[in-house]
Amino acid sequence: PGVINFAGGLPAPELFPIDQIRECVDAVLTNSGPASLQYSLTQGILPLREYIAEHVSKKGLPVTAENITITTGSQQGLDLVGRAFLEPGDYVLTELPTYLGALQAFNFYQVIYCPVTMDDHGIRVDQAEEKIKQFKPKFIYLVPNFQNPSGITMSLERRQKVIDLAFKYHIPIVDDNPYGELRFSGKAMPSLRGIGGDAVIGLGTFSKLISPGLRVGWVVAPIACSKIIERVKQATDLHSATFPQYVIYEFLKRGYLEPHIEKIKVAYAHRLGVMESAMREYFPKNVTWPHPEGGLFLWLQLPEHVSAMKMLNESIDAGVAFVPGQPFHPDGSGANTMRLNFANATPEGIVEGIKRLSVVLKKYC
Amino acid sequence: PGVINFAGGLPAPELFPIDQIRECVDAVLTNSGPASLQYSLTQGILPLREYIAEHVSKKGLPVTAENITITTGSQQGLDLVGRAFLEPGDYVLTELPTYLGALQAFNFYQVIYCPVTMDDHGIRVDQAEEKIKQFKPKFIYLVPNFQNPSGITMSLERRQKVIDLAFKYHIPIVDDNPYGELRFSGKAMPSLRGIGGDAVIGLGTFSKLISPGLRVGWVVAPIACSKIIERVKQATDLHSATFPQYVIYEFLKRGYLEPHIEKIKVAYAHRLGVMESAMREYFPKNVTWPHPEGGLFLWLQLPEHVSAMKMLNESIDAGVAFVPGQPFHPDGSGANTMRLNFANATPEGIVEGIKRLSVVLKKYC
Repeated sequence: PGVINFAGGLPAPELFPIDQIRECVDAVLTNSGPASLQYSLTQGILPLREYIAEHVSKKGLPVTAENITITTGSQQGLDLVGRAFLEPGDYVLTELPTYLGALQAFNFYQVIYCPVTMDDHGIRVDQAEEKIKQFKPKFIYLVPNFQNPSGITMSLERRQKVIDLAFKYHIPIVDDNPYGELRFSGKAMPSLRGIGGDAVIGLGTFSKLISPGLRVGWVVAPIACSKIIERVKQATDLHSATFPQYVIYEFLKRGYLEPHIEKIKVAYAHRLGVMESAMREYFPKNVTWPHPEGGLFLWLQLPEHVSAMKMLNESIDAGVAFVPGQPFHPDGSGANTMRLNFANATPEGIVEGIKRLSVVLKKYC
Repeated sequence: PGVINFAGGLPAPELFPIDQIRECVDAVLTNSGPASLQYSLTQGILPLREYIAEHVSKKGLPVTAENITITTGSQQGLDLVGRAFLEPGDYVLTELPTYLGALQAFNFYQVIYCPVTMDDHGIRVDQAEEKIKQFKPKFIYLVPNFQNPSGITMSLERRQKVIDLAFKYHIPIVDDNPYGELRFSGKAMPSLRGIGGDAVIGLGTFSKLISPGLRVGWVVAPIACSKIIERVKQATDLHSATFPQYVIYEFLKRGYLEPHIEKIKVAYAHRLGVMESAMREYFPKNVTWPHPEGGLFLWLQLPEHVSAMKMLNESIDAGVAFVPGQPFHPDGSGANTMRLNFANATPEGIVEGIKRLSVVLKKYC
């Protein structure tokens, strides 16, 4: 029945907290109607920035609202960091693979990538150090938790070592953390910002926790850096939409976030389990993947000679969509990889989609 | 009682249609809850683009949803046009004075301006032609209706001549039209896009008509051009917030826009009248201004030796704020100009604010 969609990074819409959002919207219009519909600050509305600052401060170096910029989702955070700090010919060190949207954002600024491979514990720090010595990158871009696309989480030891590198070579880290709160198993890990303080620019978002359509994300950065981000943001859109910022703040103030995260974690963990067992049951044995401890994505390694891109049309004809992995590789490698989103389809849809995909995989692998 | 604010471009918050927006929000959450909170298309939600396309088509060359990109306010439209088409060293032809936010957006792309003076009928086309021959600008940026900051409206004859120039020299026009619907007197004029069709990229917004805090604007452009704008927008923020787009569409669908525009036009026309009579009564006679037929702004010419910038702190101490005019001049001229927003303060506040400003003006003029 239609194409089952494992592509894209969409959260499950049937889990959106619509009734709570309705309550919040009503309260905002009643209590802050004119202000919520008026122009506001480029940095974002103060109470929301204060709330995020308090949340960030609990996990590491204390910050204030002045360290926070509200963005139109994390994607705008990536673009603003690029806009503020990148110049043509600059090097950016990334994981290999890395988040496609970050590459799209940074590409505009005509940078050159230094991709560094990962193992089960995250980026290979020894290789990263070699690249740093050789290329002096402008910053290191990392997705340490349930990485998009690989699902890999950086170990504590590796986090410490990456921060050591940042200090040793005076190279800031951009810590992109959209899924950090969506951990289903394993031990919670301090954020890079939590360990590295002002050596780290952190990107966060409510897209995966509440709603992506409200487009409320944030950047936490040293104040001098926040001022630059504010200046470049002002020229791009004056500020992100005011009304969604008020709605998100109301949602947080009412204590709705934690219980809602618990609810979606249970659902997503279940979907991950369903997808992995279906994969174990139906997929060819030469298709492998690292087990993610959270997030939204499963990352498949196909045999070396197989091109996921070439399978895409046939898969869609068979009624299942995925994202080929090659575009996540700034060096053009990774033809034999693909990304599956386990969070967006229902458990029944997941089993059916994996069955459909397995038929195509068996022809190629 | 506090500082009366004639600075900024804020519409009157007490006129926001809060009850109607509440109705629309309820309907959106009831009928399109999950979709309104989910990721959506980079170009914007289809029904809203269709509505805008129909509206635009009534006034000139027919367009479809494919010609429309929804933006985070008109400011993002300016940035995206710059991002899509400007390269370092490009020339951009503008009116003198011109909208400060456009300069801020285009400055990032390291352009050089060709400012062309205006008379009561708009930009001086003879001078514009000279600049075009000399500098081959990438595009011509114009605010033809109730210009920000000058309040001047381009005559029909001048519009035709500007379009002739665009065709003769194959230079596109960027038609920034945030206030066009807010005409209080005089005769409605066809838009530049209406006359020039695909020679013109049009920017529109609901910020001054419904609410700036929802941040819903649009770009109308030839389809090939829309595709480029879509691509560059995707890298900056994926898409503008979904939920406000649904709310605006619901507002339009229910027929709330036209009556609301009528309501704010009456209020703003009254405020303009109040401000102009207070100015005639209290200001020194060597302070002059063109009478605007709509929009939000009055533009003061002070005697040549006077610097508005130097008056600003003293004015704020006296309890009234304005925007000095110099930053609206890409050539650094205009020290003896200032912009007043007549729409944001109440009629009583306007009279009091003009009285306060007149005290300061009399010391300098």
